[in-house]
Amino acid sequence: MGPGKLDSVDLEKHTALATELGKQIASHGWILLTGGRSLGVMDAAMKGAKSGGGTTIGILPGPDTSEISDAVDIPIVTGLGSARDNINALSSNVLVAVGMGPGTAAEVALALKAKKPVVLLGTQPEAEKFFTSLDAGLVHVAADVAGAITAVKQLLA
Amino acid sequence: MGPGKLDSVDLEKHTALATELGKQIASHGWILLTGGRSLGVMDAAMKGAKSGGGTTIGILPGPDTSEISDAVDIPIVTGLGSARDNINALSSNVLVAVGMGPGTAAEVALALKAKKPVVLLGTQPEAEKFFTSLDAGLVHVAADVAGAITAVKQLLA
Amino acid sequence: MGPGKLDSVDLEKHTALATELGKQIASHGWILLTGGRSLGVMDAAMKGAKSGGGTTIGILPGPDTSEISDAVDIPIVTGLGSARDNINALSSNVLVAVGMGPGTAAEVALALKAKKPVVLLGTQPEAEKFFTSLDAGLVHVAADVAGAITAVKQLLA
Amino acid sequence: MGPGKLDSVDLEKHTALATELGKQIASHGWILLTGGRSLGVMDAAMKGAKSGGGTTIGILPGPDTSEISDAVDIPIVTGLGSARDNINALSSNVLVAVGMGPGTAAEVALALKAKKPVVLLGTQPEAEKFFTSLDAGLVHVAADVAGAITAVKQLLA
Repeated sequence: MGPGKLDSVDLEKHTALATELGKQIASHGWILLTGGRSLGVMDAAMKGAKSGGGTTIGILPGPDTSEISDAVDIPIVTGLGSARDNINALSSNVLVAVGMGPGTAAEVALALKAKKPVVLLGTQPEAEKFFTSLDAGLVHVAADVAGAITAVKQLLA
Repeated sequence: MGPGKLDSVDLEKHTALATELGKQIASHGWILLTGGRSLGVMDAAMKGAKSGGGTTIGILPGPDTSEISDAVDIPIVTGLGSARDNINALSSNVLVAVGMGPGTAAEVALALKAKKPVVLLGTQPEAEKFFTSLDAGLVHVAADVAGAITAVKQLLA
Repeated sequence: MGPGKLDSVDLEKHTALATELGKQIASHGWILLTGGRSLGVMDAAMKGAKSGGGTTIGILPGPDTSEISDAVDIPIVTGLGSARDNINALSSNVLVAVGMGPGTAAEVALALKAKKPVVLLGTQPEAEKFFTSLDAGLVHVAADVAGAITAVKQLLA
Repeated sequence: MGPGKLDSVDLEKHTALATELGKQIASHGWILLTGGRSLGVMDAAMKGAKSGGGTTIGILPGPDTSEISDAVDIPIVTGLGSARDNINALSSNVLVAVGMGPGTAAEVALALKAKKPVVLLGTQPEAEKFFTSLDAGLVHVAADVAGAITAVKQLLA
């Protein structure tokens, strides 16, 4: 879903985007699957989804639920560390990235490796150019939350 | 949950046990998590749970949903092969084994390694003696579905 | 290879068995693959192998080498926790279990699930009966280190 | 190590780079760890390493050795699919990427997530700019094989 680390200057912007995205995902009846931890855009997106009455799945990296977000409905405890990023990619119909960091980049790359479509929202131009160079047919750049939702709707159609 | 392979002479008995167990799990409001494939006792248990109005999670071993049971509500696609057995163990509050084969034995052993309680239902005496020798405090032997449900209720209390 | 936990009354016996087994494995030119941690029979077996001039591979569960045995030549850092037990099973031609605990039981069960032969050495009768009940064709019980080596030699022939 | 897929127009260039890089890695006494399959730059790099008398480890994605390169000395069979990319990242002291595709991008991103240094060799400018934007301190761009070897030497010092 997006970086868990809170060191970005863009944090406030990304948190707002993720919250609204989560709410919209819920309002369309889609299930939101994230890394499940209580930080960053994944937490914001799940809180948005819950505020919209949606269902959330958290694919946790640790061996227990100690890092879980309050907004996870269904916790999957993997104990796999970052190897769980591949489960996020394989279990999603569409991957939406909000912002970008090494963990988000891994999820996007693993999604492309598995031929899953990706929507980039609020990512830096370097990320958009790079991932488009990897697979232009699978990578969609959204200008805002409404654009991301439209892209997801078309990809699921 | 139990063996996926259909080569057991006890198949009919185990399928009936799993179906009833799934129904009872649903009626208690618990979520049923299994290996998610369309065979053996996991399939039977999930069909039982759905007939009782419950929710089912399937932790699939393959890289896609090609082997999924119709009775899975929430598919988690791991692509991990048998390494996904550890996710089943870590994500469950109690593991109930119906019948026994190598895959079920791996799940039970991984559950005990993670200090999770295990209920054995319809397993051979060799399995009961062995797992009890590994950790008598965590292993509970149930005589029938009602006994398994009582054990789970006490373990979750 | 065998239990990492040191709480067994049989610890001294199993450590001696594992050390001698490791030495014999090395003398036959076979590579020893274990869980790689600095404790229990896996550590003893690797020290035995090194004393015999052999090569050792350690499949570590953690995300770094902080728990590694001094006797590991080639560390593979998985970060997978107990899910790495399946790598041990898949990467071995024969699995030899010395003693028995939940982790060893998981490795044996995963080996049987992958149709790999298993040799049990110094395990309790409950373990021998149970695993033989799972797959009599793949499970071999050895009375001592010499018997285990003979079994491995035949299985690799 | 680099893309396994053979659809790149840059294939010949990357194969030559990887072969020479493998040879140089061997001549410095370093162990080469790759994804272990018999295709693309990973195969070329391992063949180069073997021609230079080096040792190679292959972290295979499948549940057996059916896709293995002839040039693998030590096969680790993970059965994890693309989740094994994280083992490559965690088990390496330095990750060198030759060329770029979704799988290589996942390895680089997972290496950065684990705070491992990365050397990019023969990658497109979009990749260099993107990964540098993620973590400028960990990403090193090499102009040729000699530059990559110099970078690795400094990173290991």
